[in-house]
Amino acid sequence: MFNFLKQLLIGRPLKSDQLGEQKLNKKKALAILSSDALSSVAYGPEQILIALITVSAAAFWYSLPIACAVLFLLTALILSYRQIIFAYPHGGGAYVVSKENLGINPGLLAGGSLLVDYILTVAVSVSAGTDAITSAFPALHNHNVAIGVTFIILLTILNLRGVTESASILAYPVYLFVLALFLLIGVGLFNILTGTVSTNPHTPIGTPIAGISLFLLLRAFASGSSALTGIEAISNAIPNFKEPASSNAAKTLTAMGILLATMFSGIVFLAYYYGIVPQAEATVVSLIAEETFGRNVLYYFVQGTTALILILAANTGYSAFPLLAVNLAKDKFIPRMFTVRGDRLGYSNGIVILGFASILLIVAFNGHTEQLIPLYAVGVFIPFTLSQSGMIVKWLREKPKGWQAKLFINATGALISLTVTVVFFLTKFTQVWPVLVFLPAIIFLFYRIKKHYDAVADQLRVQDKATAVPIEGNVFIIPIAGITQVVEHSINYARSLSADQIIAVYIPFEREDEKKIEEKWAKWHPDVRLVTLFSPYRSISIPLNRFVDSVERKAKEANYQVTVLIPQFIPKKGWHNFLHNQSGLLIRTTLLYRKNVIVTTVPFHLKK
Amino acid sequence: MFNFLKQLLIGRPLKSDQLGEQKLNKKKALAILSSDALSSVAYGPEQILIALITVSAAAFWYSLPIACAVLFLLTALILSYRQIIFAYPHGGGAYVVSKENLGINPGLLAGGSLLVDYILTVAVSVSAGTDAITSAFPALHNHNVAIGVTFIILLTILNLRGVTESASILAYPVYLFVLALFLLIGVGLFNILTGTVSTNPHTPIGTPIAGISLFLLLRAFASGSSALTGIEAISNAIPNFKEPASSNAAKTLTAMGILLATMFSGIVFLAYYYGIVPQAEATVVSLIAEETFGRNVLYYFVQGTTALILILAANTGYSAFPLLAVNLAKDKFIPRMFTVRGDRLGYSNGIVILGFASILLIVAFNGHTEQLIPLYAVGVFIPFTLSQSGMIVKWLREKPKGWQAKLFINATGALISLTVTVVFFLTKFTQVWPVLVFLPAIIFLFYRIKKHYDAVADQLRVQDKATAVPIEGNVFIIPIAGITQVVEHSINYARSLSADQIIAVYIPFEREDEKKIEEKWAKWHPDVRLVTLFSPYRSISIPLNRFVDSVERKAKEANYQVTVLIPQFIPKKGWHNFLHNQSGLLIRTTLLYRKNVIVTTVPFHLKK
Repeated sequence: MFNFLKQLLIGRPLKSDQLGEQKLNKKKALAILSSDALSSVAYGPEQILIALITVSAAAFWYSLPIACAVLFLLTALILSYRQIIFAYPHGGGAYVVSKENLGINPGLLAGGSLLVDYILTVAVSVSAGTDAITSAFPALHNHNVAIGVTFIILLTILNLRGVTESASILAYPVYLFVLALFLLIGVGLFNILTGTVSTNPHTPIGTPIAGISLFLLLRAFASGSSALTGIEAISNAIPNFKEPASSNAAKTLTAMGILLATMFSGIVFLAYYYGIVPQAEATVVSLIAEETFGRNVLYYFVQGTTALILILAANTGYSAFPLLAVNLAKDKFIPRMFTVRGDRLGYSNGIVILGFASILLIVAFNGHTEQLIPLYAVGVFIPFTLSQSGMIVKWLREKPKGWQAKLFINATGALISLTVTVVFFLTKFTQVWPVLVFLPAIIFLFYRIKKHYDAVADQLRVQDKATAVPIEGNVFIIPIAGITQVVEHSINYARSLSADQIIAVYIPFEREDEKKIEEKWAKWHPDVRLVTLFSPYRSISIPLNRFVDSVERKAKEANYQVTVLIPQFIPKKGWHNFLHNQSGLLIRTTLLYRKNVIVTTVPFHLKK
Repeated sequence: MFNFLKQLLIGRPLKSDQLGEQKLNKKKALAILSSDALSSVAYGPEQILIALITVSAAAFWYSLPIACAVLFLLTALILSYRQIIFAYPHGGGAYVVSKENLGINPGLLAGGSLLVDYILTVAVSVSAGTDAITSAFPALHNHNVAIGVTFIILLTILNLRGVTESASILAYPVYLFVLALFLLIGVGLFNILTGTVSTNPHTPIGTPIAGISLFLLLRAFASGSSALTGIEAISNAIPNFKEPASSNAAKTLTAMGILLATMFSGIVFLAYYYGIVPQAEATVVSLIAEETFGRNVLYYFVQGTTALILILAANTGYSAFPLLAVNLAKDKFIPRMFTVRGDRLGYSNGIVILGFASILLIVAFNGHTEQLIPLYAVGVFIPFTLSQSGMIVKWLREKPKGWQAKLFINATGALISLTVTVVFFLTKFTQVWPVLVFLPAIIFLFYRIKKHYDAVADQLRVQDKATAVPIEGNVFIIPIAGITQVVEHSINYARSLSADQIIAVYIPFEREDEKKIEEKWAKWHPDVRLVTLFSPYRSISIPLNRFVDSVERKAKEANYQVTVLIPQFIPKKGWHNFLHNQSGLLIRTTLLYRKNVIVTTVPFHLKK
């Protein structure tokens, strides 16, 4: 039943060697890995204007130089990540790069940031997309949380089905969004060039503005750089690319950078030229589209594809989180289960946990996860800074051909990323302080987990055979609930194993039962020792544990091994379990967890 | 931690032989077992008036003859139950009496009705009491469900602590209620005798009323007889009384009957004399109290004790349900767990399940369980009818001294009870039809459970030793996840048991792993056979089950027993469990449930 439902939802299991078929070509990879970065265009330019308007709308001309700075940062990041892709063809996320070049702690800092950030990606993108939809259809507004959760469940199922299949589904909306924005920018520029747009609304570039400060400009720059979240996804996902993976990934990254730069510049320029002022109830992209097309079908096309790509941006998290988790799990910093491939060869544990965590966030914030955007952005720029610093160290250490140029690119990127991070902390401390709590907590947890796995490996390692204590003989304890077939079978079994001693244990709650069973036993199996442990408080496990302890203590002296044989019914039908006290299960658990005994379950399969 | 909380709530465990201390004396028994019956006075008279007012308020004089009929029925029931108490000193509920005299099906019909009825008692009484409280403090009105659920939880805890202790707590409100009603009736009668009450409001007895019919009078009588719910509780609870139990129980029953009759007659008479008309927002008792005292402290005393006793009426369910459940469980019609005494010697499973079920009802009906009153009443009169019919059969069969008088009493009771039941079905079918669905369903379930227990007993019975298949040899299968200390220990163990064959099984997901382990194994334990089962779909249990099957088939031919040895980590701390795949547990469960093999768990206790 469960298996049937599972197959219906995620498809039939795939063989391990079918993995190759799931690899991505460039076109699909661009769609699946860049929706997060590209969708940032929907809010990045707006963030700049929102920061500037604290002075006045006249300051909007500053958005053009700020956009240039963001583009510069984008270029530096793209170039830097291209270098990473070739340097780390097996997947070079911030975690791997930082760990190898800067040491384990910076690596964990980067890994921890990204792990949390991918969850935020999913929650933030899905709720933003849901907001876009419910703005278009106000009747749905009260169901924001339900809609968001539904989208996450759908994304989770898509990703459990497998990477390529979800890419096929996701490719169209991403390309439609790119088409929509190019159309918007193209028509907008055409209108400007043909002079149909008034030049009045915007202040000329260079107009002096009172009250502008470097601090404010930095803040606007930091806000605008939230458009760059998601560009690291490709470098994490290199193993998902078709061969030659590195080269394909680098090309995809460049293509994404060009698309992002074009759309970002176009939107910033149109917003400036049209004199758009950010409003609470309409996004900047929506205002530009309205100005360009009027409220016709093209306007709705832009809005619809924007909503779609925001929801699909969440998919970046689904592609990147499980791969990062595998890297961390291979290094034993997070539970091993993240390395297990599911029926469809995806890392299903990572996918499912990501889905759960982001649903939790959406429910906890009642669908208003926009409040988390600064947290999310700072969580991206910390690993950006670390990975590029790592590359600096790498070039200084290895000094390959042309290392000066490479060093320059990464140094620039690192410096700007660091600046953005610092600016976030200086200007938005009230929103980003949780990073200072959860990052140390996560790193602490990473170390605890690592320590445990190391300790286990240590204890499991096979030592010289000489050190193992030999087993000189065996004592079998059989707790019984009466004189039955199962007990008979258990005694036969213990005898067939040439047990040195067999002790049946009966735990009566009433004195009468005690006598009754002793008399019966004497007739039935006079050769097997029966111990009765009267239990006035009607507990089975306390007297049994005490008895097992005393037997174990004696057995240990002679290097005897104690085994407890538990006769257990196996009912024919599930509901029958309610009709039997599950004492066998309880006894087994307490014995295994507390005592140094081996526990054997002798099943008795009921046939009716 | 769990144990500490448990002891805090319900007290330290008691020894089985401390049971005697928990027995009830008459005064406490009256408090604990009669609150349900006595509290019925709060709504019984009102039900009569509500039925009569469908004709006119002038018809209210009929409430006096109807009350006489109810008192007659009460007398018959009390006399009949006295006879039952002496005839069945070990607890003679409707279930036992019907089963012994009428046969198993009538017994189950009575038992099933009562089982459901006790749940209804708790739900109905608690919500009525809650309503009384929230009527006095309207601010609490929106929290009806929460208050009701809290009361049920408190009652459950009280009853888990033990019968006597709860009786001490419960005795005061019950006696205060009796005091309040006697005060009310006494002052009322005094006022009437001293002539301070006008005689105008009521129609003289015997006034002819147009539109009155026998059907309507029967309906009013049936409604009024809802005041008699709960009087069977004492006869179910005889084993809870101090010795001489039967005689004490009979005296308590008589005392309860007298109290009930007095209060019922008094309220009906005052209501008639004052010319009270039932209102939606005030109960009849409240109107009488207001008329008698005005809105002074005595009025609030009456109202307060009424509210309290309604909630405590639920306690009757807590006393009766677990005892009835024990009787049914001893006959194997419901799960055996109902016969197990908890730490404080109460039948805790019954208490807890009753609490759960009534909370469910209150939540499902959103606190408005008054809708269930007719269902509840009919569920009482079915067993009344059955148990008295049973007594008729008993007297006819045994013919003890004076059997004619006894027969007459029980026959009268049976006839009236049957009439009430039939009238309920005729006049309130839309409210009582669910009985026709759930009673057959419950009886069906009873039989299914009985059948299962009988089948189990049959299969467990020890047969001639000759029929048991001897175990000629042993095969041990050890599934391994690598070459570790635990595996070493498992092999040593299997050898110490002089196993005839030891097979280690490794299930690789990748071909490389397969080779690696085979090479290592050949060096490590060349004498132990290693089987590798390559699993392209990354399932452990499917190939393992298949392998175990094939080994088992061969072993069976030679009467060999197959044992699967599962090495299992026992982590030192609870949270470590998340860090290990629980495949051992999964394998164990599927093997035990599906295969005829013995499963042994070899624990490996991690020390760090």
